Amino acid sequence: MADYRFYHPIEVRYGDLDPQGHLNNAKYLTYFEQARIAYIAHLGLWRPGSFMEIGIILADAHVTFRAPVQFGQRVHVGVRVTRLGNKSLTMEYSLVDMDTRQEMASGSTALVAYDYHTAKSIPIPDVWRRVISDFEQLSVIA
Amino acid sequence: MADYRFYHPIEVRYGDLDPQGHLNNAKYLTYFEQARIAYIAHLGLWRPGSFMEIGIILADAHVTFRAPVQFGQRVHVGVRVTRLGNKSLTMEYSLVDMDTRQEMASGSTALVAYDYHTAKSIPIPDVWRRVISDFEQLSVIA
Amino acid sequence: MADYRFYHPIEVRYGDLDPQGHLNNAKYLTYFEQARIAYIAHLGLWRPGSFMEIGIILADAHVTFRAPVQFGQRVHVGVRVTRLGNKSLTMEYSLVDMDTRQEMASGSTALVAYDYHTAKSIPIPDVWRRVISDFEQLSVIA
Amino acid sequence: MADYRFYHPIEVRYGDLDPQGHLNNAKYLTYFEQARIAYIAHLGLWRPGSFMEIGIILADAHVTFRAPVQFGQRVHVGVRVTRLGNKSLTMEYSLVDMDTRQEMASGSTALVAYDYHTAKSIPIPDVWRRVISDFEQLSVIA
Repeated sequence: MADYRFYHPIEVRYGDLDPQGHLNNAKYLTYFEQARIAYIAHLGLWRPGSFMEIGIILADAHVTFRAPVQFGQRVHVGVRVTRLGNKSLTMEYSLVDMDTRQEMASGSTALVAYDYHTAKSIPIPDVWRRVISDFEQLSVIA
Repeated sequence: MADYRFYHPIEVRYGDLDPQGHLNNAKYLTYFEQARIAYIAHLGLWRPGSFMEIGIILADAHVTFRAPVQFGQRVHVGVRVTRLGNKSLTMEYSLVDMDTRQEMASGSTALVAYDYHTAKSIPIPDVWRRVISDFEQLSVIA
Repeated sequence: MADYRFYHPIEVRYGDLDPQGHLNNAKYLTYFEQARIAYIAHLGLWRPGSFMEIGIILADAHVTFRAPVQFGQRVHVGVRVTRLGNKSLTMEYSLVDMDTRQEMASGSTALVAYDYHTAKSIPIPDVWRRVISDFEQLSVIA
Repeated sequence: MADYRFYHPIEVRYGDLDPQGHLNNAKYLTYFEQARIAYIAHLGLWRPGSFMEIGIILADAHVTFRAPVQFGQRVHVGVRVTRLGNKSLTMEYSLVDMDTRQEMASGSTALVAYDYHTAKSIPIPDVWRRVISDFEQLSVIA
């Protein structure tokens, strides 16, 4: 699993920058979030409509900042699932400059499968497990 | 001047939505801003680098909300200059759904030419006046 | 009606600033929105819980920028209702530096009473009309 | 070091919430950032003016989400320095509900001392080292 099979392009907005003229640190999580939703939609596990149906919540998030991101840079965010547990999974992210292939940032999030109706964590749905395992060619050891 | 000669695509982000599930009202100004900068860059009047060199500041902004914008909608923002005064100009914006051609919102901003070094308003630079007049086919009555 | 009877303090965040080092223009609408909700809660017309119960939607918004807002400035946003129509009302806003009393920005929004269940505009509820008229000492000509 | 000696209050904004009605995950970093700057100003290590003079940049950030944050909750962010290295330091954060004392989230950031003029990392300035060590009662082992 040396690489990412899914990338989502993000346009750096002027409104994402801070007084130091670079992408503000909080926006990296916004970029990861946008790419994460695109990944889930790409795999057919959610279609735009109720966000309550996504059924995963964040347990934690980590970002490593490697180089400042500038306005006008063409960046993509790679997304992949690297771990499928019983009730949780790990997603990793790589923010890449598409022209230079430089990795500007990387990160990961732990996500927990969640039923908004009962407000409880649940086992990851089988369809998620199957579709993600296939896409990522993960070995099926829960 | 029935239409816009410049459109900039914007991806609606999950992070742009609010608890009512729609694009938050403040984000319309973020979208207009992004499209405004793209317009200025498109006309060759600014190239990514120091934002202090853009040389225009906002005097006011107006948004008319026509229909809620949803996640997943493909939207573009039209930008045009409709007035070139001595020290100020008016830009108009149209937020359009690219699939249905429905106008979701429109707006305008008054902008003042500004010299950040002297911190004073200045006459609109001749090159701006010439390039914008040409692009918009504005009659050259200052 | 020379003044505002309700002010809400807002802390300027580093994350609200843009590369020019000032409060970004879109954030003024965020500040107005926060103050608007505080005003409605202050009058007892909504209590934190479902935002779907607020029952007003934005028809338009206008901001006049008078002076740049800096990090560390103590600012308050004044809110008042200046017009109560049949189905719509007008709110005005004044962003003031609490130390110098300088008005940094002002604005207004047109709001429409709205029933989220039927997705239709409705007459402004009587309780809103009564409470706001009393608070603002508006003459009760609808 | 069981606790935090510095807390900064943050008002949860409507504009911080996402379609699930809770504080959006990216905003936790915005809250940490705001509290971090307040901590640095509180210790007299920076006074509002040029952000280029803060002289620290983020190397990484981590957030653990414990419970969703709602609109209207009174929250404070605790900040402390737990490690002072040669060129880097670690800050920790705790987002607490002031009414229930429940910790809603925690986090940490690695920060690197940086000279914007030479664009290079530098040893942590002695004054920072001394002031922070005193405040946090850190043992002075670099």
